[in-house]
Amino acid sequence: MTTGRLLGIGVGPGDPELMTLKAVRCLREAPVVSYVSAHGQPSMARRIAAVHLPGTQREINLALPMEPLPELAQAAYDEGASRIGAELEQGRDVAVLCEGDPLFYGSFSQLLARLAGKYRTEIVPGVVSFTAAAAAARQPLIARSESFVVVPATLPAEQLRARLSQIDAAAILKLGRHLAKVRRVLDELGLLERAIYVERASTAQERVLQLTDLADHEAPYFALILLPRTPGVGR
Amino acid sequence: MTTGRLLGIGVGPGDPELMTLKAVRCLREAPVVSYVSAHGQPSMARRIAAVHLPGTQREINLALPMEPLPELAQAAYDEGASRIGAELEQGRDVAVLCEGDPLFYGSFSQLLARLAGKYRTEIVPGVVSFTAAAAAARQPLIARSESFVVVPATLPAEQLRARLSQIDAAAILKLGRHLAKVRRVLDELGLLERAIYVERASTAQERVLQLTDLADHEAPYFALILLPRTPGVGR
Repeated sequence: MTTGRLLGIGVGPGDPELMTLKAVRCLREAPVVSYVSAHGQPSMARRIAAVHLPGTQREINLALPMEPLPELAQAAYDEGASRIGAELEQGRDVAVLCEGDPLFYGSFSQLLARLAGKYRTEIVPGVVSFTAAAAAARQPLIARSESFVVVPATLPAEQLRARLSQIDAAAILKLGRHLAKVRRVLDELGLLERAIYVERASTAQERVLQLTDLADHEAPYFALILLPRTPGVGR
Repeated sequence: MTTGRLLGIGVGPGDPELMTLKAVRCLREAPVVSYVSAHGQPSMARRIAAVHLPGTQREINLALPMEPLPELAQAAYDEGASRIGAELEQGRDVAVLCEGDPLFYGSFSQLLARLAGKYRTEIVPGVVSFTAAAAAARQPLIARSESFVVVPATLPAEQLRARLSQIDAAAILKLGRHLAKVRRVLDELGLLERAIYVERASTAQERVLQLTDLADHEAPYFALILLPRTPGVGR
């Protein structure tokens, strides 16, 4: 019997209409869909894709443990890969739904590392959060010979400072409880005035404002900061 | 009379099926579509979107001059913005087709700078080339607390060296005739073995190989190099 294919499907930043035609086709055709849920919350990727799901598929919810312990997470990925592998062995394609793009952050690479050697694999790229945030802000990120840096807010302050000290333009992802630290670093680097805060880009809860106008002391995980090269032109 | 809306539509990396549902809807609904063509070549963005065009729209081809002189290009953008503005004044939406994403490199920001203050503007983000290249290579780009750097190959060698010397992972875009210079810099930095060459990702002409296996001395403009953090797992 032919084994099934492992499909990594990027579902984009939040708006179901920002899924690609290929993502929608592939996830509809697959008899099994899988997704990761973390912190006891429903899977964001499944929520984005929900309107496109036919409702007849087997679903594998890969729930990550509440405690952020690497070895528990690894065990959860092992178990998820084994459940997905069992479907692939039966010749069924499994579409793994991934927020944004499957290979740009996110947990799909954990499954890929465990399964790609054994099964045919196809990846459908998706729209990443920082381009959706730029669209929400109507803010060009880079042009011509400029460079762009993507850093996660989870880095220690000194590493953030080093990576942001010589930039043309940048995006700082995964803000969450790291907002205060990021603000401090941007202030030290003289970048505060350039910073645009974008929360839940492309969704009904979208917020776009200058970071200097943000009163909040914490941000959701799905918030980011853009440091564009040029001042905004479209707002 | 209400003026029309300026729509910046990301058409993605090359495969028409990697356009988003929203991009397809917006470009079909607009009475006017526009695109840039350069170097006397047909517009790549129009070619990507062609299967989705109803064939009844007015089209504005913004042809950039053959000579790469900044003042000639600026004059071409001025003229293009003025033609687009005339349609917007008549109350017609104009969908500007953009390869990849409208705000991540590309010439749309030139039009945005000239028109956004005067007309309502909406941006539809698109899949960028480096995630499509990672999908083609089945290669995770970054995970966890890693950073990512995007640099254009057009930079002078010493600037490339500076920007690539401390990376977790990176993509080098716009290779073209800069391939030899990039190879030299990667060799000096000890990054040659990590480099994956991807040409025309997501199209029928797609090529993926280790840079060390590439015999060519020049590359197309739509070729890039990935410097992933971790060795490939999916090939």
